[in-house]
Amino acid sequence: MQNSTSLQPQHPRHGGNLAWAATLAGCSPQEILDFSASINPLGPPASAIAAIQANWDSLIHYPDPNYQVLRQTLGSHHDCPPDWILPGNGSAELLTWACRELAELPTTVLMTPAFGDYRRALKAFDADMTECNVMEHLFDPSWTEQIPLPQSAQPAGLLLNNPHNPTGKLFSVEAILPLLDQFSLVVVDEAFMDFLPPVQQQSLIDRIPHHPNLVVLRSLTKFYSLPGLRFGYAIAHPQRLQRWQQWRDPWSVNSLAAAAAIAVLQDIPFLQQTFDWLEAARSQLHSGLAALPGLFPLSGAANYLLVKSQHSVVQLQQQLLQQHRILIRDCLSFAELGDRYFRVAVRTLHENQRLLSGLSEILPGISPGITTEILPETPQGK
Amino acid sequence: MQNSTSLQPQHPRHGGNLAWAATLAGCSPQEILDFSASINPLGPPASAIAAIQANWDSLIHYPDPNYQVLRQTLGSHHDCPPDWILPGNGSAELLTWACRELAELPTTVLMTPAFGDYRRALKAFDADMTECNVMEHLFDPSWTEQIPLPQSAQPAGLLLNNPHNPTGKLFSVEAILPLLDQFSLVVVDEAFMDFLPPVQQQSLIDRIPHHPNLVVLRSLTKFYSLPGLRFGYAIAHPQRLQRWQQWRDPWSVNSLAAAAAIAVLQDIPFLQQTFDWLEAARSQLHSGLAALPGLFPLSGAANYLLVKSQHSVVQLQQQLLQQHRILIRDCLSFAELGDRYFRVAVRTLHENQRLLSGLSEILPGISPGITTEILPETPQGK
Repeated sequence: MQNSTSLQPQHPRHGGNLAWAATLAGCSPQEILDFSASINPLGPPASAIAAIQANWDSLIHYPDPNYQVLRQTLGSHHDCPPDWILPGNGSAELLTWACRELAELPTTVLMTPAFGDYRRALKAFDADMTECNVMEHLFDPSWTEQIPLPQSAQPAGLLLNNPHNPTGKLFSVEAILPLLDQFSLVVVDEAFMDFLPPVQQQSLIDRIPHHPNLVVLRSLTKFYSLPGLRFGYAIAHPQRLQRWQQWRDPWSVNSLAAAAAIAVLQDIPFLQQTFDWLEAARSQLHSGLAALPGLFPLSGAANYLLVKSQHSVVQLQQQLLQQHRILIRDCLSFAELGDRYFRVAVRTLHENQRLLSGLSEILPGISPGITTEILPETPQGK
Repeated sequence: MQNSTSLQPQHPRHGGNLAWAATLAGCSPQEILDFSASINPLGPPASAIAAIQANWDSLIHYPDPNYQVLRQTLGSHHDCPPDWILPGNGSAELLTWACRELAELPTTVLMTPAFGDYRRALKAFDADMTECNVMEHLFDPSWTEQIPLPQSAQPAGLLLNNPHNPTGKLFSVEAILPLLDQFSLVVVDEAFMDFLPPVQQQSLIDRIPHHPNLVVLRSLTKFYSLPGLRFGYAIAHPQRLQRWQQWRDPWSVNSLAAAAAIAVLQDIPFLQQTFDWLEAARSQLHSGLAALPGLFPLSGAANYLLVKSQHSVVQLQQQLLQQHRILIRDCLSFAELGDRYFRVAVRTLHENQRLLSGLSEILPGISPGITTEILPETPQGK
């Protein structure tokens, strides 16, 4: 045919791109210690593996297009009728359809910095975006009360992330509820909400029956460490979800993902084990980072921390990869953050220590970054 | 929350709905002998299983959003640059995006009867459809030359299925090529093309470089018996595929599907074994069906046969399920076919014989169908 075009890995727009990292580190992807994707390091749980193996035979059949058992299990889990739930090929697939609905409104308010895939999905349907940069409040404890109201009398949508990515900030239910009266459609991505112990969670799922203009997106594969398997779900009014089902193909969730999801929802020991690990490990990582020169970690509610850096993150990332095969998430894809921030997942105590040791070794040799931005005077967590 | 809404299985719109069949047969889905989904009964090949097991660890990472190795393998297989290939979550996912492009044209010509998901995907983007009913030519050997030209001077799209589903008819490359000059965008779904030995195939893949208005959709999971795993791909101009990539999420193909696809493309023995089986088994099934009273199978190029029936197919299907736990594909979802047609996959010689025996037992007790349509005088294959 024609000359082959190179598909060499380019600088990634998302965390977890091990193909790119391995090329830079000169090793295999398996050798990279990945702090860039916010995945639970304790998983996958044995319950998920057992379910996948027990449902091996399901691969020779099409999945049930109704995903009946799966929806019933999710329904029981959330105390919610099964037809209010739509399983998807990762929550990213469902984000696409949520943004198609947002695109029908004159504008959608997007708090920035924002997870890069939000812009992708909104642009996919030519949505108008009203960006609300909250950077100046980043180290302000009241940041989570700064959700913007629509700017005009026109109907508007809101795309929110709770806990927020990449900052890790948690909005309270009380801060979000009034917005449901102000915006025509509110999509809340709760991809990391399950990392919070139930009493701390600020989920809107139980408010959905009273708000047909509310959509909640959830993921299971971050908490249960199966991002390669692809599984997420949306909770919203059944009429909305039926519309989405007509937009997409009938067999969106593969059979093994469906089987694993059903199994892990009943795995209470893994849940408790994760909560126990996360509190201790996040605290260790936060204080370890805060003790390093020129690093200012924000306090985060989920399983990752955003870190402000006086050092060039591009250099830091490169040296961590080449000298320690450790991958951190640079923030170049967030225009508001650039070369002065990075994000790290919370991993095991031992792995966190490897990161901290690697950083302390490298930091003295790193130049002071490419931007001249002034650091906040009293950064939180330092 | 609210009262739970029932998700009881309804009459399916596609083959392979074992949840629905099992409810009707009063058994487990595993006990159903499924002739309704056109899946290779020899698979999955050991190479696929081995690849899935060897890539188990990949589940804890996000898939490479570039699917570099996968695209290179597919590129080598088709002698085509890797960036002309886009892997998808089943070819049904890619159909959605192909139909989004077709929807931008004033109309799209659709030959009917048509695979039900075509209408779903076209309607998803409010595409105008010009349906071309080819029923009157169904038993006419020149049917495959009846592809309609656009009806007006306006630009139009064409959505074609080759081999055609549900009839099994094969269009020649020569019949399709002139259409590439007539239609602004031609999408050819070749989901079953790989069931034909290479010398018999009429694929358009090697014509794609000369026709930027051509898209070919392919599947691997029918031939390799992994429909639960979800994997398909599109071959088209890179600019078009880059656009689709911006429309959909970055990790559409799960890691196990990617690993299995790479492995099976190199499994030549399974390929040969399938060709050997299919020719003999299809011939056996065709003559067996043709020998039964009131059944008129069309000759088909792929791994399924469409059968005209003087008997009510709804009754036939129900009794086969309840008395023999055998599921055939009724054609109620094809408005042009209704209760007088059914489709069966070609399965192993032994399984085909079970179907034929079940039919011969049941047929004498079945009423003459609910339509009064006259059968063709000289049906092909009878």
